[in-house]
Amino acid sequence: MIKVLRLGHRKARDARITTHVCLAARAFGASEVIISGEQDDKLIENVNDVTERWGGPFKVSYQKDWKKILKEWKGEIIHLTMYGIPIQDIIKKIKESKNEKLIIVGGPRVPGEIFKIADFNVAVTNQPHSEVSALAVFLHMFFEGKELEKEFENPKIRIIPSKEGKKIVDGGVKDDKAS
Amino acid sequence: MIKVLRLGHRKARDARITTHVCLAARAFGASEVIISGEQDDKLIENVNDVTERWGGPFKVSYQKDWKKILKEWKGEIIHLTMYGIPIQDIIKKIKESKNEKLIIVGGPRVPGEIFKIADFNVAVTNQPHSEVSALAVFLHMFFEGKELEKEFENPKIRIIPSKEGKKIVDGGVKDDKAS
Repeated sequence: MIKVLRLGHRKARDARITTHVCLAARAFGASEVIISGEQDDKLIENVNDVTERWGGPFKVSYQKDWKKILKEWKGEIIHLTMYGIPIQDIIKKIKESKNEKLIIVGGPRVPGEIFKIADFNVAVTNQPHSEVSALAVFLHMFFEGKELEKEFENPKIRIIPSKEGKKIVDGGVKDDKAS
Repeated sequence: MIKVLRLGHRKARDARITTHVCLAARAFGASEVIISGEQDDKLIENVNDVTERWGGPFKVSYQKDWKKILKEWKGEIIHLTMYGIPIQDIIKKIKESKNEKLIIVGGPRVPGEIFKIADFNVAVTNQPHSEVSALAVFLHMFFEGKELEKEFENPKIRIIPSKEGKKIVDGGVKDDKAS
C-alpha cells in the first residue's frame, strides 16, 4: 500500500500540478494522496469526481499538520527529491520491506527536516523536472509495470483501447456490491 | 532521437504544465520540444535557462503550424492519448524501427485528425492523469531505464546524489570545446 503526501500546496499557483499529482498517483497505483499546505476543497472535489467516474478505490484528503502524519507513520517514508540517491540504485532496497510506504512529494521549498525524517531520499534523475513525472516513474518502477494492468472498481465509464479513435463505454466492471 | 510536439499550449493556463512537459522531456532523454498553440516566449526562455544551467543538448522552440511539422516528419509519429493502445502492448513494436520519433502530447481537445495521422496512438494507462507523467513514463519505457544514467553536457551546476541533504557543485563535466 502506497500513500502520497503532497507538501506545500498553494491553492492559486499549484491547483493543476497538484491535481496532476493526484491523478498520476491514482493511475499508477497509489491508494491515497494527502494534501498539505493550503486547503483546497475544489481540488479534492475534482479528484474525487475523477475517482467517481473512472473507478476506485482512491482517497484524497487535506491535512494541515504534516508533521503529525510523519510522526504517526508506521512504514517507510520515501522523499522524492532531485538531491537524493538515484532511484535505480535504491529501488530494490526500498522494495525489500513489505511495510506501507509514504511517498513525499514537495516543491522547491521542502523543509530541510524532511531530508532527515525520510528513510529514503530518492532522485528520479538528479535533474529538474516535475513532481508529477517523478511520482509516476517512481510508482512505475516500484510496481514494475504491473500498475499498467490495474483495473479500477466500479467505474461509470471506461476506455476500450483503440488504434485510432476514442471509444468510451459505460462501466462494464460488474459491481457485485451494488447488485 | 526523440522529439516532442506539445499541442494546444495556452499561455495563461498551461504555462506550468507545459514547462513540466519540457523539463520531463529533457530529463528523460528527448532531444527537443516543439510547442504549438499560443506563442510563449517566457516559457521558452525559462526552459532554455534550465538547459543553460543544468546542461544540454536540449532544444525548445515554438511552431504555430503543427500540420507542417507532421507533414514533413520522416520518422514515426506517436500520439500519447488515454484512448490508445496500452503502452505495454505496443512499445516493443515502436522500438523496432530506428527512425526518429515524434511524440505528440496534447490536452483534452486534440484535433481528431491527429489520431489518424499518428502511426501509433499509445495509452500510458487508459486512465486520466497528466501529459507530464504520460511522457515521462513513455520515455522511461522507451529508453528502458538507460535515460536515468544520462549525463548532460556542459552543466554549470550539478547534483552530487546524497542520502540526506542537498549537494550542488559547479559544472564538473569537462567542456573540451570551451578549453
